[in-house]
Amino acid sequence: MSSTFGNKVKISVFGESHGNGIGVVIDGLPAGFKVNMDAVLAQMARRAPGRDKTATPRREKDLPKILSGMLEDTLTGAPLCAVIENTNTRSGDYGNLMTCPRPGHSDYTAYVKYNASNDVRGGGHFSGRITAPLVFAGAVCRQLLAAQGVRVAAHIYSIGNVHDKPFDPVHIDGALMERLSLSSFALIDRGAEEPMRAEVEDARMQLDSVGGVIECAVTGVPAGFGGPMFDGVEGVIAQALFGIPAVKGVEFGAGFASAAMRGSQNNDPFRIEDGKVVTSTNNCGGILGGITDGMPLVFRAAVKPTPSIGQVQQSVDLQNMQNTELTVNGRHDPCIVPRAVPVVEAMTAIALMNIL
Amino acid sequence: MSSTFGNKVKISVFGESHGNGIGVVIDGLPAGFKVNMDAVLAQMARRAPGRDKTATPRREKDLPKILSGMLEDTLTGAPLCAVIENTNTRSGDYGNLMTCPRPGHSDYTAYVKYNASNDVRGGGHFSGRITAPLVFAGAVCRQLLAAQGVRVAAHIYSIGNVHDKPFDPVHIDGALMERLSLSSFALIDRGAEEPMRAEVEDARMQLDSVGGVIECAVTGVPAGFGGPMFDGVEGVIAQALFGIPAVKGVEFGAGFASAAMRGSQNNDPFRIEDGKVVTSTNNCGGILGGITDGMPLVFRAAVKPTPSIGQVQQSVDLQNMQNTELTVNGRHDPCIVPRAVPVVEAMTAIALMNIL
Amino acid sequence: MSSTFGNKVKISVFGESHGNGIGVVIDGLPAGFKVNMDAVLAQMARRAPGRDKTATPRREKDLPKILSGMLEDTLTGAPLCAVIENTNTRSGDYGNLMTCPRPGHSDYTAYVKYNASNDVRGGGHFSGRITAPLVFAGAVCRQLLAAQGVRVAAHIYSIGNVHDKPFDPVHIDGALMERLSLSSFALIDRGAEEPMRAEVEDARMQLDSVGGVIECAVTGVPAGFGGPMFDGVEGVIAQALFGIPAVKGVEFGAGFASAAMRGSQNNDPFRIEDGKVVTSTNNCGGILGGITDGMPLVFRAAVKPTPSIGQVQQSVDLQNMQNTELTVNGRHDPCIVPRAVPVVEAMTAIALMNIL
Amino acid sequence: MSSTFGNKVKISVFGESHGNGIGVVIDGLPAGFKVNMDAVLAQMARRAPGRDKTATPRREKDLPKILSGMLEDTLTGAPLCAVIENTNTRSGDYGNLMTCPRPGHSDYTAYVKYNASNDVRGGGHFSGRITAPLVFAGAVCRQLLAAQGVRVAAHIYSIGNVHDKPFDPVHIDGALMERLSLSSFALIDRGAEEPMRAEVEDARMQLDSVGGVIECAVTGVPAGFGGPMFDGVEGVIAQALFGIPAVKGVEFGAGFASAAMRGSQNNDPFRIEDGKVVTSTNNCGGILGGITDGMPLVFRAAVKPTPSIGQVQQSVDLQNMQNTELTVNGRHDPCIVPRAVPVVEAMTAIALMNIL
Repeated sequence: MSSTFGNKVKISVFGESHGNGIGVVIDGLPAGFKVNMDAVLAQMARRAPGRDKTATPRREKDLPKILSGMLEDTLTGAPLCAVIENTNTRSGDYGNLMTCPRPGHSDYTAYVKYNASNDVRGGGHFSGRITAPLVFAGAVCRQLLAAQGVRVAAHIYSIGNVHDKPFDPVHIDGALMERLSLSSFALIDRGAEEPMRAEVEDARMQLDSVGGVIECAVTGVPAGFGGPMFDGVEGVIAQALFGIPAVKGVEFGAGFASAAMRGSQNNDPFRIEDGKVVTSTNNCGGILGGITDGMPLVFRAAVKPTPSIGQVQQSVDLQNMQNTELTVNGRHDPCIVPRAVPVVEAMTAIALMNIL
Repeated sequence: MSSTFGNKVKISVFGESHGNGIGVVIDGLPAGFKVNMDAVLAQMARRAPGRDKTATPRREKDLPKILSGMLEDTLTGAPLCAVIENTNTRSGDYGNLMTCPRPGHSDYTAYVKYNASNDVRGGGHFSGRITAPLVFAGAVCRQLLAAQGVRVAAHIYSIGNVHDKPFDPVHIDGALMERLSLSSFALIDRGAEEPMRAEVEDARMQLDSVGGVIECAVTGVPAGFGGPMFDGVEGVIAQALFGIPAVKGVEFGAGFASAAMRGSQNNDPFRIEDGKVVTSTNNCGGILGGITDGMPLVFRAAVKPTPSIGQVQQSVDLQNMQNTELTVNGRHDPCIVPRAVPVVEAMTAIALMNIL
Repeated sequence: MSSTFGNKVKISVFGESHGNGIGVVIDGLPAGFKVNMDAVLAQMARRAPGRDKTATPRREKDLPKILSGMLEDTLTGAPLCAVIENTNTRSGDYGNLMTCPRPGHSDYTAYVKYNASNDVRGGGHFSGRITAPLVFAGAVCRQLLAAQGVRVAAHIYSIGNVHDKPFDPVHIDGALMERLSLSSFALIDRGAEEPMRAEVEDARMQLDSVGGVIECAVTGVPAGFGGPMFDGVEGVIAQALFGIPAVKGVEFGAGFASAAMRGSQNNDPFRIEDGKVVTSTNNCGGILGGITDGMPLVFRAAVKPTPSIGQVQQSVDLQNMQNTELTVNGRHDPCIVPRAVPVVEAMTAIALMNIL
Repeated sequence: MSSTFGNKVKISVFGESHGNGIGVVIDGLPAGFKVNMDAVLAQMARRAPGRDKTATPRREKDLPKILSGMLEDTLTGAPLCAVIENTNTRSGDYGNLMTCPRPGHSDYTAYVKYNASNDVRGGGHFSGRITAPLVFAGAVCRQLLAAQGVRVAAHIYSIGNVHDKPFDPVHIDGALMERLSLSSFALIDRGAEEPMRAEVEDARMQLDSVGGVIECAVTGVPAGFGGPMFDGVEGVIAQALFGIPAVKGVEFGAGFASAAMRGSQNNDPFRIEDGKVVTSTNNCGGILGGITDGMPLVFRAAVKPTPSIGQVQQSVDLQNMQNTELTVNGRHDPCIVPRAVPVVEAMTAIALMNIL
């Protein structure tokens, strides 16, 4: 089922970018918890386009309307439904997309799957805008997790070939987590901001786009959560992250780098520290046998460059079944990576609600 | 639920490496299909240790006993249950593992999760041996897929720093798929075998182990399968692959490399070929918006080096909560990557049965 | 997970009777189907209170607003979300229900489960009003089923001790199905209407309420759908029907009566009719071994009398933990059975979408 | 998915009556619990045929072999797999059943669903023998529940038209629960045994069979478990009970009788007793709004007469598509109701593990 996720806390996402509204139903939240709605809105603002100079110029009003599940900011235990109404439900920009699919987009695959009935205006259900309700849901979940001492934060690991400093996977302090989780251009090393913005600007000037990698950490997870095999922590988090449009790779701890390592390098030695079992390195990303080991969870998601670019591209005319050139007009966001950071955090939080 | 996977075709795996038996129940297979049991056994032989000179010396009899679901090799429609009985149910090798966890293994996390009740002899439910019933299940699914023209094959993309030639993701011919899917040391470029075996031998001589990457392709999948968001093809396959012990990363198409690309490079141009829509490149790995686009599916899984090594390692004594050194006796398989190839193929086939 | 149902077609219900809105997300509907919205609204009207003289005087505007999944009445393949906004979100009627639970209602159990955070105004998520989005979802599903020749209709089998004529489970003609499925007081024998209304009126005069039984039939289901054991047709339909508040019993075919029968009476003899296998009787309700046999499905749901009555009742004061008397003011619907008929049909249709 | 049940504790049943073995995999059980295997075997003996003079003469060896999940009778946390091997895997008794379906049996529907590939020898996967592993699974779950003070017991409410005394749903003492849960012919009023056995004997003499009703109670369930709508306690228990072959109706509390009641009769008044909220009657069967209210759960399942009878019956020849007469040779169990009592208890226990 394509738009639902989770067993203990289940989310069901709906909406098309230019329909009447988009939203989410979250089932399984505990009753009686007081939600800080300002903090929720702050998270949604991090994702919204137009808040940062690298973002798309279109401005949305992403204010969620709560239909159920909350009474005076307190969860009632009933499913929590939030809707973001669309003010711009008409769009003339997408005329020939029905028959001429944009390379790298889901236009063609949706055309085949949905018998040409998909609402392509703005990407339909595949639009990046569908991530707004995910951030809403994740923001509520993050507050519930924080109440248990579990914190989630991510940063821009790279844009193009420009890299931030990675997390030190053994020691991640709370102040860094706090700073990242509120930032609209989240970096561990603020010195990386300028070259990253230059990379984005360069792509923009060439009517092109650029991808990146997001690294996420979770602190405060006790040892012993998750399980072997199919609902191991890696599998649950990966399924959540691959639900984000544009994510094409997910790795935990040393990830692909561990494939080139020897066991003697990759194995994380155990030791006792302050009466607690810890590991001296964290190549496993805090997960052994699918189960948390008490160290920070650390993982990365590869985000492909946004397929929407201004350059002329090779495509096909599906009605006449012949080759054609396509130019997609309008201004395009040359890099969604900064705005995808809160989405990765949100999906991680939702996944954790189903693990802890 | 940790040991079940799938919705349409559901598998439930059981067994501990030194219990009475390990096996799998497969629910949802179509009635009336005639299974080629010799081909199933051939797949299981590819995974079994001791068949290839790089493998561990312990020999298992991995012959499955069919308890239900099959009558004279024909599927009856009832759940298919296969059991591999263990002949060696006693093991004196694991004496101090209860209290002194092996680095990189699940000993510690299982100890915490299962209140010290996990059967650690041989790794318990976490043992690599649990992948034998997965290969059984996958081998049956592969035959069902082949009947629809869908073929699955993988190769050793790398061991340590030695690489095979990658798949050409646009043109993958049937003869290559066939050859790989029967090979016990699956390589596209056979010239890579000697340096890879040298790499493994080098690790063995140092009482160490080495990891690798497995690349898998699926041909013959029509466009239009999968869906957006949480059961997109990437998410379903990733969840299946992360169910394999030792997998720490999964990427589709260009994967992490796409994060360093520009959109104009990464977008796969559409064109008409023989009256069919194809793409000129396949950076998306055959998946756009979570839905198949009719091109081959191509993806990679990173396999960490086996944590079992002969060197002295730093660990802890969980009873006395103090640091200690650990030497794990016995002969260890220095590289499971060749034997993990059929497991990746099997889990891919099981995932596809839930997608197509 | 309390508010979702289904695997192939999954519904997720949200809303509290006096929150901002109630609604449903339906995931898994096929793209390209044109929905007859007038017919959907006609079904919702059958359930709405105040349309029939036996119903509660409160009038609702149950017009659904489509947020996503439909474009000019055609399904797009994305999740279909419909919201019914509440105009009356304030309610002063429920002052002491927080601490003095109504007998037969969920006030007390919700109080315990939700740590006293449930929004009791109007029954919260437990309100009968939550069945409005179910009827919406069911009405869409019924149109999809009808396109395959499958028809669902129910009638008031009994109110109190007054009975309608039962379905002839072997021959159910299409005209009867059509008439019942459009009726607001659905009866096979129209002569039963007057004594039933008298029974309801008698209950009303005594400030009391009265229950009933609803019998439902499904025609046009081919043999061979469903399966043995836990997702047998009986189990799936029963789970759907027990999701309707007030249903306390479900039986298929002869049901409880079959328990008093001999096998020779209860077994339905097979015979050939017009080249097709049929049964001469239908005590099994069209289901053998959890699988449809090609005869009409026939089953009944017992609806308890609405717990809301005007009489003085014995209850407890939960704050002071002492006995007390409770009088619930306001006008109460003395019999919800006629309005529950379309809800039973709707849940049956949703269940069938997951079976066929 | 037809042979799996549950979310928190998931069971997967396999086996055909005359295959190599039948069994169950139970995933999600807690590690470290010591199982009383004698008590488990005692439960399995209650279900096994031939232990009681009303039962079928065929004797089975229903001794389960534990393949995994248990070490010296202690649960390891890995999936628990138990197999009952079949000693009699050949059967010549079922020759013409492939083409001449027994009325009331699943022969015909399985023939359609499974393309004539179902292993009909002994009823295939539909056989009553498949309930043996359910009793195994339930017996383990009952011990886990008992450790929390939750007890499950059922009795023969009726056979044909002979009734036992029903449970007093408000006061059910532990000694009665204990006695019933160990009895092979479970009755509250032992005086009902003789007329019930006479009823069974009368059916046998007429080469016929007879059905009955089983009433089940659960004590010790605290208030607040379950939830509204689709996973309400009624829905989960009903789905479990309808998974038992031959169950055609399920009702909770007053059930169908409540449909003829007035609200003032049916509503259970609350009162304080020993500082606790209780109800004076228990027409709701311990469940309000799908959530437990702290009173005993009480419900009934209707069991149809076994379709296997010795009389001549009307059937069809599926190959020639013509009417025919059918006589099924062999000795038939004229009443499975006594042996179905432990199956109802087992499925209830499994359902409760998913609710509590």
